[in-house]
Amino acid sequence: MWGSRSIYVVIAVLACIVVCEGGVTSSYRRKLAATLDMPLDVDVFKVPDGFNAPQQVHITQGDLDGRGVIISWVTPSRPGSNTVWYGLEKGKYVKSSEGKFLQYKFYNYTSGFIHHCVIKNLEYNTKYYYRLGEGGSAREFWFWTPPSVNPDAAYTFGIIGDLGQTFDSNKTLQHYMEGKGQTVLFVGDLSYADNYPNHDNRRWDTWGRFVESSTAYQPWIWTAGNHELDFVPELGETTPFKPYLSRFHVPYHASNSTSPLWYSIKRASAYIIVLSSYSAYGKYTPQYRWLEENLKRVDRNKTPWLIVLLHSPWYNSNGYHYMEGESMRVQFESMLVAAKVDIVFAGHVHSYERTHRISNIAYNIVNGDCLPVHNESAPVYVTIGDGGNAEGLAAEFTEPQPDYSAFREASFGHAMLEIKNRTHALYYWHRNDDGKAVMADSVWIRNQYWH
Amino acid sequence: MWGSRSIYVVIAVLACIVVCEGGVTSSYRRKLAATLDMPLDVDVFKVPDGFNAPQQVHITQGDLDGRGVIISWVTPSRPGSNTVWYGLEKGKYVKSSEGKFLQYKFYNYTSGFIHHCVIKNLEYNTKYYYRLGEGGSAREFWFWTPPSVNPDAAYTFGIIGDLGQTFDSNKTLQHYMEGKGQTVLFVGDLSYADNYPNHDNRRWDTWGRFVESSTAYQPWIWTAGNHELDFVPELGETTPFKPYLSRFHVPYHASNSTSPLWYSIKRASAYIIVLSSYSAYGKYTPQYRWLEENLKRVDRNKTPWLIVLLHSPWYNSNGYHYMEGESMRVQFESMLVAAKVDIVFAGHVHSYERTHRISNIAYNIVNGDCLPVHNESAPVYVTIGDGGNAEGLAAEFTEPQPDYSAFREASFGHAMLEIKNRTHALYYWHRNDDGKAVMADSVWIRNQYWH
Repeated sequence: MWGSRSIYVVIAVLACIVVCEGGVTSSYRRKLAATLDMPLDVDVFKVPDGFNAPQQVHITQGDLDGRGVIISWVTPSRPGSNTVWYGLEKGKYVKSSEGKFLQYKFYNYTSGFIHHCVIKNLEYNTKYYYRLGEGGSAREFWFWTPPSVNPDAAYTFGIIGDLGQTFDSNKTLQHYMEGKGQTVLFVGDLSYADNYPNHDNRRWDTWGRFVESSTAYQPWIWTAGNHELDFVPELGETTPFKPYLSRFHVPYHASNSTSPLWYSIKRASAYIIVLSSYSAYGKYTPQYRWLEENLKRVDRNKTPWLIVLLHSPWYNSNGYHYMEGESMRVQFESMLVAAKVDIVFAGHVHSYERTHRISNIAYNIVNGDCLPVHNESAPVYVTIGDGGNAEGLAAEFTEPQPDYSAFREASFGHAMLEIKNRTHALYYWHRNDDGKAVMADSVWIRNQYWH
Repeated sequence: MWGSRSIYVVIAVLACIVVCEGGVTSSYRRKLAATLDMPLDVDVFKVPDGFNAPQQVHITQGDLDGRGVIISWVTPSRPGSNTVWYGLEKGKYVKSSEGKFLQYKFYNYTSGFIHHCVIKNLEYNTKYYYRLGEGGSAREFWFWTPPSVNPDAAYTFGIIGDLGQTFDSNKTLQHYMEGKGQTVLFVGDLSYADNYPNHDNRRWDTWGRFVESSTAYQPWIWTAGNHELDFVPELGETTPFKPYLSRFHVPYHASNSTSPLWYSIKRASAYIIVLSSYSAYGKYTPQYRWLEENLKRVDRNKTPWLIVLLHSPWYNSNGYHYMEGESMRVQFESMLVAAKVDIVFAGHVHSYERTHRISNIAYNIVNGDCLPVHNESAPVYVTIGDGGNAEGLAAEFTEPQPDYSAFREASFGHAMLEIKNRTHALYYWHRNDDGKAVMADSVWIRNQYWH
């Protein structure tokens, strides 16, 4: 049924047997050498040939169900064309869609012309070719649409967080692209431009060019992290998320959200909810109300797999950023447990960790019931902020390993979620230092609704 | 030293002896009859005489130190004059300041012309008269500036929350005005216009006229509550706080805030911090970063009294809204304890409650230390959402009364904080059903820094 991956399955099942009986802190030790952003002249930052050629091309889902795509790109010198030409054969672009462009300023930086174009009503499970730009500067790419929304659609998501633009980031991306991921679930912290003086937004541009080799060809589902805030009152920059929201558009209206920072999509057999750790989430707030409403819309008969993405993890056992997600957990955890969410992916902590199914929702202030407990209705929590950014690894785990923690390791890497059908998905994590065939952590996820 | 109030002092000390040894649930029982908004034709809603006469006049502090005032008013028919004329003698207005006006739309409602005018560099401790409007429609009011910022300045604050516009609201306001309050600390939920179909914003106007008898003559320090959100996507109204922020301006720039929803002022011997329960407060967010910075600016040698206002209480033992403030508490409590905040005033729960000095900041997920404990460095928490709005009283207290709760009673009322000097303040709460001289709850607050 699963072809050549059956050997992995065996490994995974064995891994589960070991892992599920307690917590594992991996003994694997990589060099903890300082990691540096790639210099401006590396190939992956190269500006494409041709005057005003489209660059930083990235696509994401453009509607609720996966028949739409948002195609975004930047032209550096003048607005140029807003048109995306597309079709079923390379070079034969019989249809077109018209986008819009915007520019933004950030302190002493002025962005290029950022284009966003929505294409809707595509066929499911179809390869589309598309062309951007004009004359000799035009560029061509392609993408696959997902299978139609249906409960047994097999689909493979990659999961990447806190990527940055170091040589390690490049390894993570290359490593991911060698696999069979069809869509990336990105859990926040993209470029780390904000670590540069004045949040040098040129590092947003280099990042856009760096990831293009993947983002132009398959959707990345975006989540905002703290490095997207770009809140710098001392520079007069007081609108949170300005560069991020200018560069990355998402189909938030389609899920009745009023903000691109929280939204949901359906894709194949998955229902994916994106939340914002850095927006208001108190009761009555827009995000709270939206989540409450949106969870009611989930139909596990159509989308068995309910996945949540957010940046600051609710459960992790690393000294780095420990408990920073606690306030959001307190507000939202009971809602996710009640909804039987399958997995919550978070980033933020530059390390890898996977929990058992646990919850901590019995607390009422006076009862003292505040320890996480085993709960089969609860999600698995994965922290995967190990994309490889320049801030380095977070290697100081709390000791002893808490009961809720199933596996943890301070290495850069990425994860994959291979949804097989409505009942089973194979989840595994690769560390960058290994070859493609090695799953450093893996586990079969049984669907919370169907199993 | 405290003149005719010494009799109260005795009562207060006695009250403390009783109260401090445990929790009291008041046996006082008022009629829990339904309470109604006043009809549109009551006197307190009356539009002032004269064409386009200024209405809904309210003032608040206009700078960091109390030498500034923001004067706001509404003209219904046309913009009219933006000028405030003022001086030291009634009728002799030798100085003027120029304001600005705005209008806003909310669904099918268009506001009047809302004027905001800042006057700065006033003398401390001085009575100023001011005039608004034109010709025969002009109106005159007055206010006192506070004493200069100094550690032993005596000053009396009133505390009101969740006021609304019922007959009970009117009692609360009248009751407060019979006392000697010099400035109101208002802990959110003003008009409850959002309880009307389409959030009928005319009820914002009636509320502005209702409170004018106090707000035109002394500053009210504003905090946003959930009834200020006015977030109604189904009506196309997706900008939170639009009516509130249009009508009530605060001097947030003066405390380096980037939002009128959180800010601080110094007034006499008090440093007052206003927080927003319904904005982002996660680590790295603007409010979080501002609070962290702002607490560093507090100099208890200049302003011994550190007071925090917010809407959704962190500690209360009422079934109504129980634990709604928990997520914000988790994020901010340790900062307030470290800063030795004297009192935190909150609203939201339509009842009255005062806690002992307690904290709950030892929890680290795995240690199970999550019970509130006695902590002399911690603030006293007062919940005073009992202004009298139409949603009625919250009379279902949790049983048994938790250790952290010192006194609680389901009655409408208001509180007073009489700061005597740098070491002592007399705090007391009046229920509406009593005469002015009766303090239903009272306690001497010893300053957290100086005592």
